Amino acid sequence: MRILSFLWRRITALVSTVVLLLLVFALFIGWRVLGPAQQDNEERVAAKRDYLEAIASAKPVPGPNIVLVLYDDMGYGDIGAGSQGNLLTTPHIDALAANGVTLSDFHSPAPVCTPSRAGIMTGRLAPRAGLPNVVFPSGSFTEAWFKVLLGSDTPLRLPAEEITLPEVLKAAGYATGMVGKWHMGDVSPSLPNDFGFDSYFGARYSNDMKPFALYRNNEVEVEAPVDQERLTEYYTREATTFIEENANAPFFLYYAHNFPHDPLHVRPERLGQSPAGLYGDVIEELDDSIGEIVDTLERAGQLDNTLVVITSDNGPWFLGDAGDQRGNKGTTFEGGMRVPFIAHWPQAIAPGRVETAMAMGTDLLPTVLELLNLPGPQDRVLDGRSILPVLRAGGPSPHEFLYYYDSSTLFAVRDQRFKYRGPAGVKYGTDSTPVSGSIPQKEWLFDLDNDPREAYDTIVHHPEAGKRLRRAFEAKQKDMEDNLRGWR
Amino acid sequence: MRILSFLWRRITALVSTVVLLLLVFALFIGWRVLGPAQQDNEERVAAKRDYLEAIASAKPVPGPNIVLVLYDDMGYGDIGAGSQGNLLTTPHIDALAANGVTLSDFHSPAPVCTPSRAGIMTGRLAPRAGLPNVVFPSGSFTEAWFKVLLGSDTPLRLPAEEITLPEVLKAAGYATGMVGKWHMGDVSPSLPNDFGFDSYFGARYSNDMKPFALYRNNEVEVEAPVDQERLTEYYTREATTFIEENANAPFFLYYAHNFPHDPLHVRPERLGQSPAGLYGDVIEELDDSIGEIVDTLERAGQLDNTLVVITSDNGPWFLGDAGDQRGNKGTTFEGGMRVPFIAHWPQAIAPGRVETAMAMGTDLLPTVLELLNLPGPQDRVLDGRSILPVLRAGGPSPHEFLYYYDSSTLFAVRDQRFKYRGPAGVKYGTDSTPVSGSIPQKEWLFDLDNDPREAYDTIVHHPEAGKRLRRAFEAKQKDMEDNLRGWR
Repeated sequence: MRILSFLWRRITALVSTVVLLLLVFALFIGWRVLGPAQQDNEERVAAKRDYLEAIASAKPVPGPNIVLVLYDDMGYGDIGAGSQGNLLTTPHIDALAANGVTLSDFHSPAPVCTPSRAGIMTGRLAPRAGLPNVVFPSGSFTEAWFKVLLGSDTPLRLPAEEITLPEVLKAAGYATGMVGKWHMGDVSPSLPNDFGFDSYFGARYSNDMKPFALYRNNEVEVEAPVDQERLTEYYTREATTFIEENANAPFFLYYAHNFPHDPLHVRPERLGQSPAGLYGDVIEELDDSIGEIVDTLERAGQLDNTLVVITSDNGPWFLGDAGDQRGNKGTTFEGGMRVPFIAHWPQAIAPGRVETAMAMGTDLLPTVLELLNLPGPQDRVLDGRSILPVLRAGGPSPHEFLYYYDSSTLFAVRDQRFKYRGPAGVKYGTDSTPVSGSIPQKEWLFDLDNDPREAYDTIVHHPEAGKRLRRAFEAKQKDMEDNLRGWR
Repeated sequence: MRILSFLWRRITALVSTVVLLLLVFALFIGWRVLGPAQQDNEERVAAKRDYLEAIASAKPVPGPNIVLVLYDDMGYGDIGAGSQGNLLTTPHIDALAANGVTLSDFHSPAPVCTPSRAGIMTGRLAPRAGLPNVVFPSGSFTEAWFKVLLGSDTPLRLPAEEITLPEVLKAAGYATGMVGKWHMGDVSPSLPNDFGFDSYFGARYSNDMKPFALYRNNEVEVEAPVDQERLTEYYTREATTFIEENANAPFFLYYAHNFPHDPLHVRPERLGQSPAGLYGDVIEELDDSIGEIVDTLERAGQLDNTLVVITSDNGPWFLGDAGDQRGNKGTTFEGGMRVPFIAHWPQAIAPGRVETAMAMGTDLLPTVLELLNLPGPQDRVLDGRSILPVLRAGGPSPHEFLYYYDSSTLFAVRDQRFKYRGPAGVKYGTDSTPVSGSIPQKEWLFDLDNDPREAYDTIVHHPEAGKRLRRAFEAKQKDMEDNLRGWR
């Protein structure tokens, strides 16, 4: 009996201790999840308003129409003309390339969706633009978990003070429309219509996130679960309708398809057509969609006067071809960040050129500013540079350096020839180990001209380049530490 | 006071519970670490003895001398003739290729060291040969941890009942010598001299494992830590001395270098010579070593009568060039398992050929059996097939299928054109996430002829191939489940 009573006391003590610990843990979780949320910088929001109003009141002369096509997870090698074994055919994209310019050394601003898009839309690297990580649907378990790990105020939407491409173009008198995937926050004030789009039709995040519905502006139009076999049909119809309705005005269409991001779907008539399997079917249906957009521009008499840009937000994921490069989506090796880039604009771009000048998605906003002869904002730093001269007439990159970020960490910096990777871990694990950890590595210098696969560290042979790039790397880290958001 | 006494009772209860749990855990750990160790199969050891004695008493006619050079983590693209941008020069290996045969579709038996070596030495896939995982130094924390995870009897050395290449050759009258990395156990009865080598000089495991000493037979000759700048010098001297001392007898030299496995070291005179950096310096010093071996064979009048084979145990790790293929060391994608293979034997191999027949490291032992006209063991299955006809005169692969294992898991099976990957997880994580987990994927069929980068699943277009390979995949799994070790 004494033993039983002894045990009973211990059991009750243990249970009460566990309950107490759980309670403390629940309080911590609750505080992290429900604590103060991300706040916008009202002073900068006002400065942005002033900047956009100044543009609008200067009544700038509009430039060409702009159609920016952004694919999701399309690889460097996924475009027909350069694909392996002719497994894919993309005649419409190839025709744009043949009649336009291809940049063979173009990079996404980040190796994953959200930060890449934040970089493209703002002309600023994602940590600078305040949105360095992939975001998940509001109220989802993953989002809550992010808050627990990173704090309740971790950025889950593009901050309202950021200046975006559509806002600039809208201020400059463009009709602005978006079709497709936003993925920079699914709550106000960070929805597409909050950031300068007159009209929006599409998904708020990736097609593997739930609930996957399609919105027209801020209302659900196609309820979840969307029949993704019809996604390209929906998007193409919206894109062509937008062009038809705005053919008499200068317009900006941001066509951000959810594919070829997993899961893959295609309309039944396309299924089984590509020798590259379902992935190829999807790419080929996307190419059909480009064909319809080009036809629509032609019918409207606007093709010659429209700058069409086609690119991707990062390298391929599980399927898809990164080209002859190291790694896939998620890494700052070239396979994760070097992406296709084609620009077509008959009135200003001489056809059939391939330009090797390095560039990045952050360059699009500065390029548009130059195109419309608009001033940049004076109260904040842009990381991109205009590549308009490169597009028009070739020549060197406007960048001395490009910076490769994943999340808020700078992994590499490059110039036109070399890529410096700072000392950092590189993942290693075997197919059968449940997880891969990072194994620390020394700094590496890749000679991309002679070693595009990033196989050999040649820092000993190029001490000057190593020093120059290490200095740029460290200066960038310090600069971002001192003034992350680049406020002036 | 009552509250204090209440708290005190609970605290003592908690402490005693924690102590109790720790005790149970310690007992579990102790049992896992100190429990019954790996046992050899005595009946099979006897059968092996009978087999080797039968060979010896049949007094077979010896074939050519054999020099098997096995590099550690050398990539498919690391050999000069095929390297990118001429960053590497390997004139001696290139000369062997020019005067011999290259197999362009040769695979290691596994994507990591130990199981690959077990496959090469036994002609059996590593799970069959009883050593599917990488092994660590006896008494190390990692080894203890393996035992905790996998049980005290998990295989940490090549089982004594396995029949190895040197044992067969020794029985056939060859002088057998090994120089370099063993990595199939560092305790008896699984040391090199236990497995048929008359003489052994080298390391028992990888050059990043501690203590890293060099053994002559079973005694330490160069104490840890070995000056790895001199490793190639030590190994080359041993290899050439072995050839000189055995030039009048048929001999087998297994030259298994520890490089280019990390950490990399090179003799001071080679440092800074290769434009591919330290990795290139190491590869080029290895090539020097091949040059000295060839010279020694030539001086001894044995070059024409020696089959020299050069290959690698798996794809490259953090640096090194996997060629234009997906992935690196650790994965069953081609970048992890397709390796260089060159065979040189002037008396029997017509020069300057490249053969595309698929083959694997497990084929070496059966090839030697055919070369010496020896019977295979009857009491056990071999997975390899002789590729002697391919080496001599080209032609098709002797395999209908090749199986790609990592650890004890079958990940893929291929025929000459297609590679079927069973439903399994593929790692995904970003550079900045601390670990990468496996994301489940459906079965995939790659058309290696048209898609060597394994970018596109084309199973819908090749249903027959898909069915045939899925059937082979499942049959292999069942076969291994029913009789893993292939005893008859």
